[in-house]
Amino acid sequence: MDVRALARRVVEGDHVAAARAISLVEDRHPQAVQLLQELGPYTGRAYVVGLTGPPGAGKSTLADALTRLLRRRGQRVGVVAVDPTSPFTGGALLGDRIRLVDHSSDPHVFVRSLASRGSLGGLSEAAGDVVRVLDAMGCEVVLLETVGAGQVEVDVVRAADTVVVVAVPGLGDAVQALKAGMMEIADVFAVNKADHPDADRTVAELVNMLRLAPRDGWEPPVVRTVATTGEGVEELLAAVDRHRKHQEAEGLLGRRRRERARAEVLRAAEAQLRRALLQEASALVEELAAQVQSGRLTVGEAARLLLQRAGVLR
Amino acid sequence: MDVRALARRVVEGDHVAAARAISLVEDRHPQAVQLLQELGPYTGRAYVVGLTGPPGAGKSTLADALTRLLRRRGQRVGVVAVDPTSPFTGGALLGDRIRLVDHSSDPHVFVRSLASRGSLGGLSEAAGDVVRVLDAMGCEVVLLETVGAGQVEVDVVRAADTVVVVAVPGLGDAVQALKAGMMEIADVFAVNKADHPDADRTVAELVNMLRLAPRDGWEPPVVRTVATTGEGVEELLAAVDRHRKHQEAEGLLGRRRRERARAEVLRAAEAQLRRALLQEASALVEELAAQVQSGRLTVGEAARLLLQRAGVLR
Repeated sequence: MDVRALARRVVEGDHVAAARAISLVEDRHPQAVQLLQELGPYTGRAYVVGLTGPPGAGKSTLADALTRLLRRRGQRVGVVAVDPTSPFTGGALLGDRIRLVDHSSDPHVFVRSLASRGSLGGLSEAAGDVVRVLDAMGCEVVLLETVGAGQVEVDVVRAADTVVVVAVPGLGDAVQALKAGMMEIADVFAVNKADHPDADRTVAELVNMLRLAPRDGWEPPVVRTVATTGEGVEELLAAVDRHRKHQEAEGLLGRRRRERARAEVLRAAEAQLRRALLQEASALVEELAAQVQSGRLTVGEAARLLLQRAGVLR
Repeated sequence: MDVRALARRVVEGDHVAAARAISLVEDRHPQAVQLLQELGPYTGRAYVVGLTGPPGAGKSTLADALTRLLRRRGQRVGVVAVDPTSPFTGGALLGDRIRLVDHSSDPHVFVRSLASRGSLGGLSEAAGDVVRVLDAMGCEVVLLETVGAGQVEVDVVRAADTVVVVAVPGLGDAVQALKAGMMEIADVFAVNKADHPDADRTVAELVNMLRLAPRDGWEPPVVRTVATTGEGVEELLAAVDRHRKHQEAEGLLGRRRRERARAEVLRAAEAQLRRALLQEASALVEELAAQVQSGRLTVGEAARLLLQRAGVLR
């Protein structure tokens, strides 16, 4: 395949080429390296909005409603739905990927689902590069939607410039659902299904918690939405815009993107090291693991010896 | 502090010493290294049962009920509740750690909550070592309970010899809640709150999915429980016992523990490398991150250059 030609077509906004490019990146195809090199100069322009929250909060419907609004503004939109699906269930079980049909004929909306095949670890690595492809193809806004609320989702959504955490009233304890790492990554809260009788309580709980911890001069607003009717979605987008302007005015956006690049590089370095150790030092790994198992070595010592004997660290 | 004396008291089953030892391990105190070395020879005897599932599934109540049963058998029990709490909320919000009060006067039950302070990354590393302390203090069974269903929980619960996934009917879509990586790690399913009208449907869904994928000759049983009344808890423990015997008979337990040790060593090696890179090559990391940000380098190239220039890989 001619990777340069593919890259050129991506930059021209060709959907078929973009789909192909994303597949290469997702599969970590050897040619993905060159592809990303070619696309590099065309990236850095898209504004990435992360949408995360517990299952059933209505993130997909909200992403749909936001896409409609952004299209009305004339902006080109990319949507990446990251689904850390179990390799066991394969993700086909729920059919929740049948969606966004009403954008499928719009050449300025590009929607892609990313499922983890096998290891969850690679997903956050891939997500950043998939966003780069959409960025290079000219998407002005990329919505990065993640299912669930675990560490992988937190890592994925950190690739966003603004993180919208979608809470929902009455689904168990809304605040509990937000516990695991969600509170401190939110720039904007959407309390979706705000027509639910418990919505007031959920909003009040969130506002109370947020007052405790503004960051960088920004207190995350709490916006009520009903994604199915579109209610509150303009307010949500306005809150995202305000956050963007706040970050740009304070020089925070560049800093945030730098931090993200640093984390991505370190994660990729760890992954490369792991692959190298498993390939070139598998007997050593095996021997040290056996000594840990029998209690002769601690995990920490074994790790140190591994890095030392494999010549990685002195 | 005299670490050898502390280790001796842990091995004698002293609760105060064990609590102290766990704090050292959790905080990654410099003395934790020696402590774990001293305890090493006394480990490898505890059988570790993981309990995981979505928030609100009743894992704590189930752990309580299992502890009572195990005590009736005369076994010494350790309970580790891992709560990847947001550093923002601090975990105190829900007060859900006020529990297991009825075991507090029993010298043969040791309960400990592990919360992540700051980074979630270290939690799975710490959990393995905390289990080792309980193992060394003579706990014959360790219940490892995790809140949530993200990648951290999956990593933590992989430190178990038998993984019980707790599902619950009617809480959103029970199967959806199990999607993210839970299905393929379950050795036993407990459908808790089985007095709920939707329980039959949840059990049927699970049984259907499981038939598709027995592993190593083991088809995970689905047990109905009502943790609050103790109903089904004996059957659950019997299922865990069957799984243990199956693994022992087939030589699977040793293999599983070896795989676990290998994963722990690799994770610790990555963490050590990351610390070393951030300490010794922070300017290089910064420079490469800037080049990624500006599109001049891909993440993968930057990672390769980082490892190369820092002398880690050729």
